[in-house]
Amino acid sequence: MTGDTPVRARLSELLRPDLQGQTAYGAPQLPVAVALNTNESSYSVPEEVVAAIIARVAQVAPDLNRYPDREFVDLRTALAAYLQIATGVELSPAQLWAGNGSNEVLSHIVAAFGGPGRVALGFTPAYSMHPIISRGVGTGWVDGLRNATGAGYDVDAELAVQQVGQHEPDIVFLCSPNNPTGTAVGLDVVEAVYDALPRGIVVVDEAYAEFARPGTRSALTLLPGRERLVVTRTMSKAFAFAGVRLGYLAADPELTELLRLVRLPYHLSSVTQAVAEAALEHAGTMLAMVEAIKAMRDELSTATAQLGLKPVPSDANFVLVGGFADAAGAWQVLLDRGVLVRDVGIPHHLRITAGTPEETQTVLRVLSQSIEDGSIALQKETS
Amino acid sequence: MTGDTPVRARLSELLRPDLQGQTAYGAPQLPVAVALNTNESSYSVPEEVVAAIIARVAQVAPDLNRYPDREFVDLRTALAAYLQIATGVELSPAQLWAGNGSNEVLSHIVAAFGGPGRVALGFTPAYSMHPIISRGVGTGWVDGLRNATGAGYDVDAELAVQQVGQHEPDIVFLCSPNNPTGTAVGLDVVEAVYDALPRGIVVVDEAYAEFARPGTRSALTLLPGRERLVVTRTMSKAFAFAGVRLGYLAADPELTELLRLVRLPYHLSSVTQAVAEAALEHAGTMLAMVEAIKAMRDELSTATAQLGLKPVPSDANFVLVGGFADAAGAWQVLLDRGVLVRDVGIPHHLRITAGTPEETQTVLRVLSQSIEDGSIALQKETS
Repeated sequence: MTGDTPVRARLSELLRPDLQGQTAYGAPQLPVAVALNTNESSYSVPEEVVAAIIARVAQVAPDLNRYPDREFVDLRTALAAYLQIATGVELSPAQLWAGNGSNEVLSHIVAAFGGPGRVALGFTPAYSMHPIISRGVGTGWVDGLRNATGAGYDVDAELAVQQVGQHEPDIVFLCSPNNPTGTAVGLDVVEAVYDALPRGIVVVDEAYAEFARPGTRSALTLLPGRERLVVTRTMSKAFAFAGVRLGYLAADPELTELLRLVRLPYHLSSVTQAVAEAALEHAGTMLAMVEAIKAMRDELSTATAQLGLKPVPSDANFVLVGGFADAAGAWQVLLDRGVLVRDVGIPHHLRITAGTPEETQTVLRVLSQSIEDGSIALQKETS
Repeated sequence: MTGDTPVRARLSELLRPDLQGQTAYGAPQLPVAVALNTNESSYSVPEEVVAAIIARVAQVAPDLNRYPDREFVDLRTALAAYLQIATGVELSPAQLWAGNGSNEVLSHIVAAFGGPGRVALGFTPAYSMHPIISRGVGTGWVDGLRNATGAGYDVDAELAVQQVGQHEPDIVFLCSPNNPTGTAVGLDVVEAVYDALPRGIVVVDEAYAEFARPGTRSALTLLPGRERLVVTRTMSKAFAFAGVRLGYLAADPELTELLRLVRLPYHLSSVTQAVAEAALEHAGTMLAMVEAIKAMRDELSTATAQLGLKPVPSDANFVLVGGFADAAGAWQVLLDRGVLVRDVGIPHHLRITAGTPEETQTVLRVLSQSIEDGSIALQKETS
C-alpha cells in the first residue's frame, strides 16, 4: 500500500494546500519561575470561588450522562447580568452567545458571515488569531494599516474608513484594547467603520476591556440600532479564568440566532456552563485583582522607559515594550534567567504580561541587569 | 443607517450563501418523562465517579487562572490506556487526539484534509453531522449508496470501492456501528475502501463501538501501517458522559500532529481534561451498564417486531424501527404520550434509544397501545 514514497511525506502532502508548510499557533508552554507570556492573571482563583465551583460541579456531575443544555440559557443570563454591572449596558440573554474561548465565538462569526470568496479585514498588528480563524474557513484576509505614519499604534478613523471602502470586507475586526500593542480604539473609529460598511459585520474584540482606563466606554454601548455589530469578550484575562475556556459575545438577537447554524451541537459542556456560572456569581471576587494588575502594568511602563526601552501606552494587562536591538535574542536571555515573555514578531519589541508585584520586580530586575551586563542591547536611536 | 430595508432581512442576507435558508441542527430538547431520542445513557453517573470528579475539580480549580495544558498529555495517556483495555490495541499517547465532542475532532480532520475544492464521501444514511461538518469548511459532499439493492443497510464492499474510484474523495466516512441504522460495517469494507483510496483519509466513526456484539473487531486493529486511517470515538454514549463533551480519535502520530494546525489553541479546558481523566480512571464503573443497555436494545428489536414493526438489526444502543405508515405522525403520538424518540428523516422509520428496563417497557407499552387504538398505523406490506 505504501509504495516507494516515504509515508511521512505523503500525509503532509494531503493537507489542505494553504496549510502545507505551516507551523501550529501557540506560545511555548515552558516550566519557568515567572511566566508573563500569555496575559493570564497571575492570581489563583480565590478559595471562596473554588468552593462555589466544587458545589456546582457536585450538583451537575450525577447527570453528566445527559447532553448539556444546548442553549445554555442560565449561562447567557449570567453573562448578560455581568455585562450590565460591568458596563451599564442592558442586554437580554438572547443577545449573548458563548463558546470554548473567544476563539470559538470568533470562529462562529467567521463561519457564518465569511467563507470562500469573502474577505475579512483587520488592522495589523492585532490579535494573530483573527487572520488564522478567518483563513480557517477559506475567508480571504486583508492586513489593514492602523495609521499612515507608522508611528505608534493608534487606529486613524479616516484611514480605516478608506480601507473599508477599498476592500469592501464582509467582516472587519477591531481589537480594543489591542493585543499585542495594548492600544485602545476609540468608539468614534468603531462608528466610522460601521457606517462605512453597509453590508459587513463589525467585530470589536474586547478581550482586555476590563483593564482599560476608567471612563473608557465599551463598544457594547453602541449595540442598540447596530444589528451588524458584535462585541466579543472572554473570561480568560481580567476574570482570571483562562483554564475554563469561556469566551462570549453580545450582538443583535437575530445575529446570535444565525450563529446556531454553524456551532457544533452541544458545544458547551454542562461542566463548563456550571463552572462559569459559579464564577460569574462571584464576579466581584474574581475581578478583585484588576486594579493591582493595572498598577503593575503602569509600573512596567514607567520602569522600562527608565531603562531606555520604549513601552507602548497600554489599556490592557500587558505592555508591548520596544527598543530592543534584537527582540528574539533578548527573549532568550530573559528565558535563560527564568522569565518567559512573548516575542510577538514585531521587530525590537517584546510583550510582557503584568503579573504580581513580585513577578513585576523580577522581570524589571532581570531586564535591568541584562542591559547593564550587556547581554541585552538597546536599539540604536534612528532620529 | 438602516435605510428602508427591514433590519431582520438584511442580517440573514449577509450569511454565507450555502447557509441561507437553512435551519440549525439539533434534536428538540423537550421536557418529557421518557427521553429516548439522543442515544444518551439513561443511567446517572455512579456516586463513586461523582466523588472522583469532585476531587479532581477541587485539585485544578485554584489554578484555573492559567491556560490548560494545550497538549492534554495526561488525558491522551488515559485515553490510550482505556482503548488498550477495551480493544487490546496498543496505542501511544501521540496517536490520540481529543476535542469537545467527537464533532470537534471530526471537524479537525475535515479542516486539515478537506476544504474548498475537495470532496468527502459518506454512505447514506449515516451520521448527519458528517456532511454538515464537511460543508462547514467548504468541502464538497457526496452521498454514497450503502448497497445496490436498497434492502437493509449493510455496506457492500465492492460498491463502496466502485464509488471511491468514481469520486476520488479526499475523505471517506464509514460509521460503524452506523447511526441512525445501528448497522456495523465489516473491517473487510474498511480495508477495501482504504486500499482503493491512495490519497485520501478514511475515517471510521466508532461512536457506538462499545455496544457491538462480542467479538466484533474495532478498526483500531487496522491502524498499524495505515497512516491515512482515523478511528473516532466518544465518551458520550457507552461511557455515559454526554454532558462532558469529550470525543477523541486514534491515528498515526504524524496525522494527529497535523491536526494541531487547525485546532483552536487551548481547545480543551483544564476542567474538561480533569473530569474526563477522573471518569477514565473508573472506566469499569462507567461502562457497567453497557450489557444491560444491550439487553434492552435486543428487547426493543424483539418486541417491536412482535408488534408488526420492522426493527433494523443493531450493534448500537438504539434501534431504528421501520414499518410506521407515517413516521412524523407516530413521533408526535409518542411525544403526546410522554415518550420522545427521534425522527431521523427516513420514511416510515423512527430511532429509539435503549434506556432502562422501565423506559423500555414504557415505550413498548405506549407503542402497543397506540397501534391497538389506531393512533399509530403500520405501513402496508408492499410485497
